[in-house]
Amino acid sequence: MVRILGLDPSLSSTGWGIIEAENNRVRYVADGFIPTDAKAPIAERLALINKSLCDVIDLYKPDEAAIEQVFLNSNAVSTIKLGMARGVVIMAPAMFHIPVTEYEPNKVKKAVVGVGKAEKNQVETMVKILLPGCKPKNNDASDALAIALCHNSFRKMHISVK
Amino acid sequence: MVRILGLDPSLSSTGWGIIEAENNRVRYVADGFIPTDAKAPIAERLALINKSLCDVIDLYKPDEAAIEQVFLNSNAVSTIKLGMARGVVIMAPAMFHIPVTEYEPNKVKKAVVGVGKAEKNQVETMVKILLPGCKPKNNDASDALAIALCHNSFRKMHISVK
Repeated sequence: MVRILGLDPSLSSTGWGIIEAENNRVRYVADGFIPTDAKAPIAERLALINKSLCDVIDLYKPDEAAIEQVFLNSNAVSTIKLGMARGVVIMAPAMFHIPVTEYEPNKVKKAVVGVGKAEKNQVETMVKILLPGCKPKNNDASDALAIALCHNSFRKMHISVK
Repeated sequence: MVRILGLDPSLSSTGWGIIEAENNRVRYVADGFIPTDAKAPIAERLALINKSLCDVIDLYKPDEAAIEQVFLNSNAVSTIKLGMARGVVIMAPAMFHIPVTEYEPNKVKKAVVGVGKAEKNQVETMVKILLPGCKPKNNDASDALAIALCHNSFRKMHISVK
């Protein structure tokens, strides 16, 4: 049995989702998002994101983590801000010595929906089908669960290839 | 008396420097840099940078922090990496509820050397003159001390304006 933490970083609202996988079965464990106050200093917002994720990790004790690779914005200032959020997010599992794997956004959608250019609501629909009983708190949480499901597909593939 | 932490973030080697200021006098306290292993996973490198800075803050207990505003690289991947490093660096003082002020690189050079387009070695030379007895560990540490000195100039200006 493996417990996987999926992470969807953003400065305004970082999504997280935890699933458990054993053989071919997956089970929903928890999900959520971390909203931050746009008027607060960026340093405080980043500290809040990291602290909240550390609390999630401490509570649910995942074995592995997965994160979406960054969407490169044409606006350099937005790219820097997303990079800053991503830095404090990807650091959280490493603080607990939990390995983090990165996936391209299209790979996540393909693993969950079957096509790389799926819409947000298609991802959420598939997340609910694949994880019975799960009602993601919002789109960010649903995307994080999709990332966890994607990691589960690929880690199994890696194992079967070996 | 105020103790100021200057920060020069980068993924490969983050510089830090601490000065003490009282009225018109400044005094060197400490400086250093945090090298990370380019072959290690990025999440671990970021966790190391943040952890090392937290140790520095815990040891020297600065009252205020200052950081250079980011140099926007034309390469989006480099910009994201710098953003990630910057995120875990700027977050460190916020974890201790220490306020962080951001300065443009040219403002830092102008405050320390007198011109906005100063060379790296001019910055180091001025840092050594302004902080007698200080031998910065490397360029990153020297830049961090320059950022601390810049913050000291501007915070005094703000006080005198009020």
